[in-house]
Amino acid sequence: MERREDVIVGKHVYGSLYGVPREKATDEEYLRGVVVRAAESAGATVHAVNSWTIPGEKGGVSVIVLVLESHLALHTWPEYDYATFDIYTCGEHTDPWKAFELLLSELKPRKYTVHYVDRSQEKTVLEAQPRR
Amino acid sequence: MERREDVIVGKHVYGSLYGVPREKATDEEYLRGVVVRAAESAGATVHAVNSWTIPGEKGGVSVIVLVLESHLALHTWPEYDYATFDIYTCGEHTDPWKAFELLLSELKPRKYTVHYVDRSQEKTVLEAQPRR
Repeated sequence: MERREDVIVGKHVYGSLYGVPREKATDEEYLRGVVVRAAESAGATVHAVNSWTIPGEKGGVSVIVLVLESHLALHTWPEYDYATFDIYTCGEHTDPWKAFELLLSELKPRKYTVHYVDRSQEKTVLEAQPRR
Repeated sequence: MERREDVIVGKHVYGSLYGVPREKATDEEYLRGVVVRAAESAGATVHAVNSWTIPGEKGGVSVIVLVLESHLALHTWPEYDYATFDIYTCGEHTDPWKAFELLLSELKPRKYTVHYVDRSQEKTVLEAQPRR
């Protein structure tokens, strides 16, 4: 089999939002819309949208959007004014930072932390194994 | 409002699997079962299971399991013998490494990379902001 020249390029922006207004953190319909628009702003193609409201002190809203290029996830803990996000998109055409900017501008946290990780196939690992 | 003593504890194990047998990487039903069992082995409570098969050269199977403690995601690229996984669980009672071990023993990659990130609320950030 001919060696593939290309690799799967993956980009993952994740982090935490502190001081998210409670009326936003509890509004499942609103949050669905925010994550869908975040995916679109990253240049990803939305394939499926799922959301849930989980009761309890450590409950909250979860939104997971499957995009053709991987997924976005948002979990909120309204009792803690807290949320975490994952924006994981594959392909050169996507920019997860655009999605992050949309989350910030919509959810208006007082503080946030954000991290980036390259989720691309690692060529050194690929080269260590013969392809079938 | 009284200051909360506890914080949301989050643990995220993620990485890549290289050389996943193609018959496994294309079997949506099998992969659903694997990710559900991975979640359970981590001590997480499965709330919803979704999976999709996306056609095309860069297509594959995606499984996303919402657990009460956050989520697990698996994406496969059978044409590349490749998969990526995210095991993100909250709470002291969960151990995402147990889920990782199950993924390895089931999917039998020839190589893998794995990373861990602490997704807990950061006290230094919390202390920088007065609670409402």
